[in-house]
Amino acid sequence: MRQAQKEITVTTSGQGLYEISGAVRAFTKEAGFETGQLTAYCRHTSASLVIQENADPDVQRDLLAFFRRLVPEGDPLFVHTMEGPDDMPAHVKSALTQTSVTIPIARSLLALGTWQGLYLFEHRRNAHQRKIVLHIVGA
Amino acid sequence: MRQAQKEITVTTSGQGLYEISGAVRAFTKEAGFETGQLTAYCRHTSASLVIQENADPDVQRDLLAFFRRLVPEGDPLFVHTMEGPDDMPAHVKSALTQTSVTIPIARSLLALGTWQGLYLFEHRRNAHQRKIVLHIVGA
Amino acid sequence: MRQAQKEITVTTSGQGLYEISGAVRAFTKEAGFETGQLTAYCRHTSASLVIQENADPDVQRDLLAFFRRLVPEGDPLFVHTMEGPDDMPAHVKSALTQTSVTIPIARSLLALGTWQGLYLFEHRRNAHQRKIVLHIVGA
Repeated sequence: MRQAQKEITVTTSGQGLYEISGAVRAFTKEAGFETGQLTAYCRHTSASLVIQENADPDVQRDLLAFFRRLVPEGDPLFVHTMEGPDDMPAHVKSALTQTSVTIPIARSLLALGTWQGLYLFEHRRNAHQRKIVLHIVGA
Repeated sequence: MRQAQKEITVTTSGQGLYEISGAVRAFTKEAGFETGQLTAYCRHTSASLVIQENADPDVQRDLLAFFRRLVPEGDPLFVHTMEGPDDMPAHVKSALTQTSVTIPIARSLLALGTWQGLYLFEHRRNAHQRKIVLHIVGA
Repeated sequence: MRQAQKEITVTTSGQGLYEISGAVRAFTKEAGFETGQLTAYCRHTSASLVIQENADPDVQRDLLAFFRRLVPEGDPLFVHTMEGPDDMPAHVKSALTQTSVTIPIARSLLALGTWQGLYLFEHRRNAHQRKIVLHIVGA
Protein backbone atom coordinates (compact mmCIF):
# COMPACT_ATOMS: atom_id res chain seq x y z
CA MET A 1 0.00 0.00 0.00
CA ARG A 2 1.19 3.49 -0.78
CA GLN A 3 -0.24 6.94 -1.43
CA ALA A 4 0.15 9.88 -3.82
CA GLN A 5 -1.06 13.46 -3.57
CA LYS A 6 -1.28 16.46 -5.87
CA GLU A 7 -2.93 19.86 -5.82
CA ILE A 8 -4.42 21.06 -9.08
CA THR A 9 -5.67 24.55 -9.94
CA VAL A 10 -8.81 25.17 -11.98
CA THR A 11 -9.23 28.62 -13.50
CA THR A 12 -12.90 29.55 -13.61
CA SER A 13 -14.62 32.42 -15.43
CA GLY A 14 -18.07 32.59 -13.89
CA GLN A 15 -20.75 30.23 -12.64
CA GLY A 16 -20.86 26.78 -14.19
CA LEU A 17 -19.47 23.27 -14.26
CA TYR A 18 -15.82 22.77 -15.18
CA GLU A 19 -14.91 19.18 -15.96
CA ILE A 20 -11.80 17.90 -14.19
CA SER A 21 -12.13 14.22 -15.12
CA GLY A 22 -9.22 14.53 -17.56
CA ALA A 23 -6.82 16.03 -15.00
CA VAL A 24 -7.87 13.49 -12.37
CA ARG A 25 -7.46 10.58 -14.82
CA ALA A 26 -4.02 11.89 -15.84
CA PHE A 27 -2.88 12.00 -12.20
CA THR A 28 -4.28 8.50 -11.56
CA LYS A 29 -2.39 7.14 -14.55
CA GLU A 30 0.85 8.96 -13.70
CA ALA A 31 0.67 7.77 -10.06
CA GLY A 32 0.41 4.19 -11.33
CA PHE A 33 -2.07 2.50 -8.96
CA GLU A 34 -3.81 -0.71 -10.03
CA THR A 35 -6.38 -0.76 -7.20
CA GLY A 36 -7.22 1.96 -4.74
CA GLN A 37 -9.34 5.00 -4.07
CA LEU A 38 -8.97 8.61 -5.08
CA THR A 39 -10.33 11.50 -3.07
CA ALA A 40 -10.86 14.90 -4.70
CA TYR A 41 -11.15 17.72 -2.18
CA CYS A 42 -12.22 21.31 -2.95
CA ARG A 43 -10.49 23.89 -0.72
CA HIS A 44 -13.27 26.50 -1.05
CA THR A 45 -16.70 27.32 0.36
CA SER A 46 -18.11 29.09 -2.71
CA ALA A 47 -17.25 26.33 -5.21
CA SER A 48 -17.82 22.60 -4.82
CA LEU A 49 -17.61 19.20 -6.52
CA VAL A 50 -20.29 17.25 -8.31
CA ILE A 51 -20.43 14.09 -10.40
CA GLN A 52 -22.75 14.57 -13.34
CA GLU A 53 -23.62 13.37 -16.82
CA ASN A 54 -20.92 14.18 -19.34
CA ALA A 55 -22.93 13.44 -22.51
CA ASP A 56 -25.54 16.17 -23.14
CA PRO A 57 -24.37 19.73 -22.26
CA ASP A 58 -28.02 20.62 -21.55
CA VAL A 59 -27.74 18.63 -18.32
CA GLN A 60 -25.12 21.07 -17.03
CA ARG A 61 -27.20 24.04 -18.18
CA ASP A 62 -30.31 22.69 -16.43
CA LEU A 63 -28.40 21.89 -13.25
CA LEU A 64 -27.04 25.42 -13.13
CA ALA A 65 -30.53 26.87 -13.77
CA PHE A 66 -32.06 24.73 -11.02
CA PHE A 67 -29.52 25.79 -8.39
CA ARG A 68 -29.87 29.45 -9.41
CA ARG A 69 -33.63 29.29 -8.88
CA LEU A 70 -33.39 27.26 -5.66
CA VAL A 71 -30.86 29.66 -4.09
CA PRO A 72 -31.59 33.03 -5.71
CA GLU A 73 -29.34 36.07 -5.48
CA GLY A 74 -30.83 39.05 -3.67
CA ASP A 75 -32.88 36.84 -1.34
CA PRO A 76 -33.99 39.10 1.57
CA LEU A 77 -33.41 36.11 3.87
CA PHE A 78 -29.66 36.63 3.63
CA VAL A 79 -27.79 38.95 6.00
CA HIS A 80 -24.29 38.11 4.70
CA THR A 81 -24.26 40.33 1.58
CA MET A 82 -21.01 42.30 1.99
CA GLU A 83 -19.09 40.08 -0.43
CA GLY A 84 -21.68 40.47 -3.19
CA PRO A 85 -25.15 39.08 -3.96
CA ASP A 86 -23.69 35.82 -5.31
CA ASP A 87 -21.59 35.03 -2.21
CA MET A 88 -24.13 33.67 0.27
CA PRO A 89 -25.96 31.68 -2.44
CA ALA A 90 -22.53 30.24 -3.29
CA HIS A 91 -22.07 29.02 0.28
CA VAL A 92 -25.53 27.42 0.29
CA LYS A 93 -24.97 25.71 -3.09
CA SER A 94 -21.66 24.35 -1.77
CA ALA A 95 -23.44 22.91 1.29
CA LEU A 96 -26.04 21.31 -1.00
CA THR A 97 -23.43 19.58 -3.17
CA GLN A 98 -20.02 18.08 -2.25
CA THR A 99 -16.71 19.32 -0.91
CA SER A 100 -15.11 15.87 -1.19
CA VAL A 101 -15.75 12.93 -3.48
CA THR A 102 -14.05 9.53 -3.22
CA ILE A 103 -13.83 7.31 -6.31
CA PRO A 104 -12.44 3.75 -6.36
CA ILE A 105 -9.68 2.77 -8.79
CA ALA A 106 -10.10 -0.64 -10.44
CA ARG A 107 -7.84 -2.21 -13.08
CA SER A 108 -5.75 1.01 -13.06
CA LEU A 109 -8.78 3.14 -13.99
CA LEU A 110 -11.08 5.43 -12.05
CA ALA A 111 -14.40 3.61 -11.53
CA LEU A 112 -16.41 6.50 -13.02
CA GLY A 113 -19.49 5.16 -14.78
CA THR A 114 -19.82 5.49 -18.57
CA TRP A 115 -21.82 8.72 -18.32
CA GLN A 116 -20.12 10.18 -15.27
CA GLY A 117 -17.80 13.17 -15.26
CA LEU A 118 -16.25 14.87 -12.22
CA TYR A 119 -16.84 18.62 -12.18
CA LEU A 120 -15.80 21.65 -10.23
CA PHE A 121 -19.03 23.56 -9.64
CA GLU A 122 -18.17 27.29 -9.58
CA HIS A 123 -20.82 29.33 -7.76
CA ARG A 124 -19.27 32.83 -8.03
CA ARG A 125 -19.69 35.21 -10.98
CA ASN A 126 -16.10 36.50 -11.07
CA ALA A 127 -13.03 34.61 -12.26
CA HIS A 128 -11.31 32.46 -9.63
CA GLN A 129 -8.35 30.14 -9.20
CA ARG A 130 -9.75 27.06 -7.44
CA LYS A 131 -7.49 24.60 -5.64
CA ILE A 132 -8.41 20.91 -5.57
CA VAL A 133 -6.33 18.35 -3.69
CA LEU A 134 -6.21 14.84 -5.18
CA HIS A 135 -5.16 12.02 -2.90
CA ILE A 136 -4.81 8.33 -3.76
CA VAL A 137 -4.41 5.39 -1.40
CA GLY A 138 -3.84 1.98 -2.96
CA ALA A 139 -1.36 -0.39 -4.53
CA MET B 1 -2.55 -2.28 5.66
CA ARG B 2 -4.36 -3.89 2.77
CA GLN B 3 -7.42 -3.28 0.60
CA ALA B 4 -10.41 -5.12 -0.85
CA GLN B 5 -12.83 -4.20 -3.59
CA LYS B 6 -16.11 -5.51 -4.97
CA GLU B 7 -18.80 -4.32 -7.35
CA ILE B 8 -22.37 -5.11 -6.39
CA THR B 9 -25.49 -4.76 -8.52
CA VAL B 10 -28.80 -3.47 -7.20
CA THR B 11 -31.92 -4.17 -9.23
CA THR B 12 -34.39 -1.33 -8.89
CA SER B 13 -38.05 -1.15 -9.92
CA GLY B 14 -38.90 2.52 -9.77
CA GLN B 15 -38.15 5.55 -7.59
CA GLY B 16 -37.32 4.88 -3.97
CA LEU B 17 -34.73 3.88 -1.42
CA TYR B 18 -33.18 0.41 -1.64
CA GLU B 19 -31.28 -0.60 1.45
CA ILE B 20 -27.80 -2.01 0.80
CA SER B 21 -26.55 -2.11 4.41
CA GLY B 22 -26.83 -5.90 4.42
CA ALA B 23 -24.73 -6.41 1.29
CA VAL B 24 -22.15 -3.89 2.49
CA ARG B 25 -21.95 -5.52 5.94
CA ALA B 26 -21.57 -8.96 4.30
CA PHE B 27 -18.65 -7.73 2.18
CA THR B 28 -17.03 -6.06 5.20
CA LYS B 29 -17.28 -9.29 7.19
CA GLU B 30 -16.05 -11.48 4.33
CA ALA B 31 -13.10 -9.15 3.67
CA GLY B 32 -12.09 -9.50 7.33
CA PHE B 33 -10.89 -6.04 8.37
CA GLU B 34 -10.72 -5.11 12.06
CA THR B 35 -10.16 -1.36 11.53
CA GLY B 36 -10.47 0.62 8.33
CA GLN B 37 -12.77 2.60 6.11
CA LEU B 38 -15.24 1.53 3.47
CA THR B 39 -16.20 3.68 0.50
CA ALA B 40 -19.41 2.98 -1.41
CA TYR B 41 -19.46 4.56 -4.86
CA CYS B 42 -22.48 4.80 -7.17
CA ARG B 43 -21.55 4.60 -10.87
CA HIS B 44 -24.61 6.52 -12.09
CA THR B 45 -25.92 10.07 -12.43
CA SER B 46 -29.62 9.31 -12.05
CA ALA B 47 -29.31 7.28 -8.84
CA SER B 48 -27.30 8.15 -5.74
CA LEU B 49 -26.45 7.13 -2.18
CA VAL B 50 -27.94 8.34 1.08
CA ILE B 51 -27.65 7.36 4.71
CA GLN B 52 -31.05 7.48 6.39
CA GLU B 53 -33.12 6.20 9.26
CA ASN B 54 -33.84 2.49 8.98
CA ALA B 55 -36.56 2.27 11.64
CA ASP B 56 -39.80 3.87 10.42
CA PRO B 57 -40.56 3.28 6.71
CA ASP B 58 -42.47 6.60 6.69
CA VAL B 59 -39.10 8.38 6.75
CA GLN B 60 -38.27 6.90 3.35
CA ARG B 61 -41.72 7.75 2.04
CA ASP B 62 -41.42 11.36 3.24
CA LEU B 63 -37.90 11.73 1.88
CA LEU B 64 -39.05 10.55 -1.53
CA ALA B 65 -42.06 12.91 -1.41
CA PHE B 66 -39.88 15.87 -0.45
CA PHE B 67 -37.43 15.32 -3.32
CA ARG B 68 -40.28 14.84 -5.80
CA ARG B 69 -41.77 18.18 -4.81
CA LEU B 70 -38.41 19.98 -4.68
CA VAL B 71 -37.42 18.75 -8.16
CA PRO B 72 -40.69 18.23 -10.02
CA GLU B 73 -41.05 16.40 -13.30
CA GLY B 74 -42.26 18.52 -16.21
CA ASP B 75 -40.58 21.65 -14.85
CA PRO B 76 -40.47 24.14 -17.78
CA LEU B 77 -37.03 25.19 -16.53
CA PHE B 78 -35.53 22.01 -17.94
CA VAL B 79 -34.29 21.78 -21.54
CA HIS B 80 -32.89 18.23 -21.25
CA THR B 81 -36.15 16.27 -21.67
CA MET B 82 -35.27 13.79 -24.43
CA GLU B 83 -34.67 10.92 -22.03
CA GLY B 84 -38.03 11.36 -20.31
CA PRO B 85 -39.56 13.77 -17.77
CA ASP B 86 -37.91 11.95 -14.84
CA ASP B 87 -34.35 12.13 -16.24
CA MET B 88 -33.28 15.70 -15.53
CA PRO B 89 -34.92 15.68 -12.06
CA ALA B 90 -32.92 12.48 -11.46
CA HIS B 91 -29.65 14.28 -12.24
CA VAL B 92 -30.56 17.15 -9.90
CA LYS B 93 -31.55 14.78 -7.08
CA SER B 94 -28.23 12.96 -7.51
CA ALA B 95 -26.34 16.26 -7.21
CA LEU B 96 -28.31 17.09 -4.04
CA THR B 97 -27.45 13.77 -2.37
CA GLN B 98 -24.25 11.66 -2.54
CA THR B 99 -22.35 9.71 -5.16
CA SER B 100 -19.82 8.43 -2.62
CA VAL B 101 -20.05 7.73 1.09
CA THR B 102 -17.13 6.68 3.32
CA ILE B 103 -17.86 4.79 6.55
CA PRO B 104 -15.21 3.81 9.13
CA ILE B 105 -14.84 0.19 10.28
CA ALA B 106 -14.26 -0.28 14.03
CA ARG B 107 -13.99 -3.59 15.90
CA SER B 108 -14.67 -5.41 12.60
CA LEU B 109 -18.01 -3.62 12.15
CA LEU B 110 -19.18 -0.72 9.99
CA ALA B 111 -19.54 2.34 12.24
CA LEU B 112 -23.14 2.94 11.10
CA GLY B 113 -25.16 4.46 13.95
CA THR B 114 -27.99 2.47 15.55
CA TRP B 115 -30.64 4.05 13.32
CA GLN B 116 -28.56 4.43 10.18
CA GLY B 117 -28.99 2.43 7.00
CA LEU B 118 -27.13 2.89 3.70
CA TYR B 119 -29.48 3.21 0.73
CA LEU B 120 -29.31 3.38 -3.02
CA PHE B 121 -31.63 6.24 -3.94
CA GLU B 122 -33.19 5.40 -7.32
CA HIS B 123 -34.47 8.51 -9.12
CA ARG B 124 -35.78 6.93 -12.34
CA ARG B 125 -39.25 5.42 -12.84
CA ASN B 126 -38.16 2.42 -14.91
CA ALA B 127 -36.32 -0.66 -13.68
CA HIS B 128 -32.53 -0.41 -13.64
CA GLN B 129 -29.44 -2.43 -12.76
CA ARG B 130 -27.32 -0.12 -10.60
CA LYS B 131 -23.62 -0.75 -10.04
CA ILE B 132 -22.03 0.20 -6.74
CA VAL B 133 -18.32 -0.25 -6.10
CA LEU B 134 -17.30 -1.04 -2.50
CA HIS B 135 -13.71 -0.41 -1.52
CA ILE B 136 -12.07 -1.02 1.86
CA VAL B 137 -8.69 0.17 3.10
CA GLY B 138 -7.56 -1.05 6.51
CA ALA B 139 -6.04 -3.86 8.50
CA MET C 1 1.10 3.19 5.68
CA ARG C 2 -0.85 3.04 8.91
CA GLN C 3 -4.18 4.21 10.30
CA ALA C 4 -5.65 5.85 13.38
CA GLN C 5 -9.23 6.13 14.60
CA LYS C 6 -11.08 8.02 17.29
CA GLU C 7 -14.69 8.74 18.19
CA ILE C 8 -15.47 12.22 19.44
CA THR C 9 -18.68 13.45 21.06
CA VAL C 10 -20.21 16.84 20.32
CA THR C 11 -22.76 18.18 22.79
CA THR C 12 -25.37 20.25 20.98
CA SER C 13 -28.03 22.56 22.37
CA GLY C 14 -30.39 23.19 19.50
CA GLN C 15 -30.23 23.72 15.75
CA GLY C 16 -27.06 25.22 14.39
CA LEU C 17 -23.49 24.68 13.24
CA TYR C 18 -20.94 23.47 15.79
CA GLU C 19 -17.36 23.81 14.63
CA ILE C 20 -15.23 20.68 15.09
CA SER C 21 -12.14 21.82 13.12
CA GLY C 22 -10.20 22.23 16.38
CA ALA C 23 -10.91 18.72 17.64
CA VAL C 24 -10.18 17.22 14.23
CA ARG C 25 -6.90 19.18 13.93
CA ALA C 26 -5.89 18.08 17.43
CA PHE C 27 -6.47 14.41 16.55
CA THR C 28 -4.56 14.80 13.27
CA LYS C 29 -1.59 16.34 15.11
CA GLU C 30 -1.66 13.77 17.91
CA ALA C 31 -1.85 10.88 15.40
CA GLY C 32 1.27 12.25 13.68
CA PHE C 33 0.67 11.71 9.96
CA GLU C 34 2.67 13.70 7.40
CA THR C 35 0.56 12.76 4.38
CA GLY C 36 -2.79 11.03 4.31
CA GLN C 37 -6.53 11.48 4.37
CA LEU C 38 -8.95 11.96 7.21
CA THR C 39 -12.58 10.89 7.09
CA ALA C 40 -15.11 12.38 9.51
CA TYR C 41 -18.27 10.30 9.82
CA CYS C 42 -21.48 11.37 11.58
CA ARG C 43 -23.33 8.44 13.19
CA HIS C 44 -26.78 10.11 13.07
CA THR C 45 -29.60 10.79 10.63
CA SER C 46 -30.84 14.03 12.18
CA ALA C 47 -27.45 15.77 12.29
CA SER C 48 -24.85 15.95 9.54
CA LEU C 49 -21.52 17.41 8.45
CA VAL C 50 -20.79 20.46 6.36
CA ILE C 51 -17.71 22.42 5.40
CA GLN C 52 -18.43 26.14 5.53
CA GLU C 53 -16.90 29.58 5.85
CA ASN C 54 -15.40 30.17 9.30
CA ALA C 55 -14.93 33.96 9.02
CA ASP C 56 -18.29 35.77 9.19
CA PRO C 57 -20.82 34.20 11.65
CA ASP C 58 -23.63 35.58 9.46
CA VAL C 59 -22.82 32.82 6.96
CA GLN C 60 -23.82 30.20 9.54
CA ARG C 61 -26.94 32.17 10.46
CA ASP C 62 -27.97 32.47 6.78
CA LEU C 63 -27.25 28.81 6.09
CA LEU C 64 -29.45 27.78 9.00
CA ALA C 65 -32.22 30.17 7.86
CA PHE C 66 -32.08 28.82 4.31
CA PHE C 67 -32.40 25.19 5.38
CA ARG C 68 -35.25 26.04 7.77
CA ARG C 69 -37.20 27.67 4.97
CA LEU C 70 -36.37 24.95 2.42
CA VAL C 71 -37.48 22.14 4.76
CA PRO C 72 -40.11 23.72 7.03
CA GLU C 73 -41.44 22.16 10.19
CA GLY C 74 -45.14 21.31 10.12
CA ASP C 75 -45.09 20.62 6.38
CA PRO C 76 -48.34 18.69 5.64
CA LEU C 77 -46.31 16.60 3.16
CA PHE C 78 -44.72 14.70 6.04
CA VAL C 79 -46.32 11.58 7.54
CA HIS C 80 -43.46 10.80 9.97
CA THR C 81 -44.34 13.28 12.74
CA MET C 82 -44.35 11.05 15.84
CA GLU C 83 -40.89 12.12 16.94
CA GLY C 84 -41.73 15.82 16.76
CA PRO C 85 -42.17 18.45 14.02
CA ASP C 86 -38.39 18.93 13.70
CA ASP C 87 -37.58 15.24 13.16
CA MET C 88 -38.52 14.62 9.52
CA PRO C 89 -37.06 17.99 8.42
CA ALA C 90 -33.88 16.89 10.23
CA HIS C 91 -33.70 13.71 8.13
CA VAL C 92 -34.20 15.68 4.91
CA LYS C 93 -31.55 18.26 5.86
CA SER C 94 -29.14 15.41 6.61
CA ALA C 95 -29.78 13.90 3.17
CA LEU C 96 -29.17 17.32 1.56
CA THR C 97 -25.80 17.78 3.30
CA GLN C 98 -23.10 15.22 4.21
CA THR C 99 -22.79 12.22 6.49
CA SER C 100 -19.10 11.74 5.64
CA VAL C 101 -16.40 14.14 4.54
CA THR C 102 -12.85 13.16 3.54
CA ILE C 103 -10.05 15.73 3.82
CA PRO C 104 -6.46 15.16 2.66
CA ILE C 105 -3.52 15.72 5.02
CA ALA C 106 -0.51 17.49 3.51
CA ARG C 107 2.71 18.52 5.31
CA SER C 108 1.17 17.23 8.57
CA LEU C 109 -1.85 19.56 8.26
CA LEU C 110 -5.44 19.09 7.21
CA ALA C 111 -5.84 20.56 3.70
CA LEU C 112 -8.76 22.76 4.78
CA GLY C 113 -8.75 26.01 2.79
CA THR C 114 -8.08 29.33 4.53
CA TRP C 115 -11.78 30.07 5.02
CA GLN C 116 -12.96 26.52 5.56
CA GLY C 117 -14.20 25.10 8.84
CA LEU C 118 -15.67 21.62 9.46
CA TYR C 119 -19.00 21.74 11.26
CA LEU C 120 -21.48 19.38 12.82
CA PHE C 121 -24.86 20.58 11.55
CA GLU C 122 -27.41 19.88 14.27
CA HIS C 123 -30.97 19.71 12.90
CA ARG C 124 -32.90 18.94 16.11
CA ARG C 125 -34.19 21.52 18.61
CA ASN C 126 -33.34 19.56 21.78
CA ALA C 127 -29.90 18.95 23.23
CA HIS C 128 -28.04 15.91 21.88
CA GLN C 129 -24.77 14.03 22.26
CA ARG C 130 -23.52 13.49 18.71
CA LYS C 131 -20.91 10.85 17.88
CA ILE C 132 -18.44 11.48 15.08
CA VAL C 133 -15.86 8.90 14.06
CA LEU C 134 -12.54 10.23 12.75
CA HIS C 135 -10.38 7.89 10.72
CA ILE C 136 -6.97 8.59 9.17
CA VAL C 137 -5.08 6.54 6.59
CA GLY C 138 -1.59 7.69 5.70
CA ALA C 139 2.06 7.76 6.66
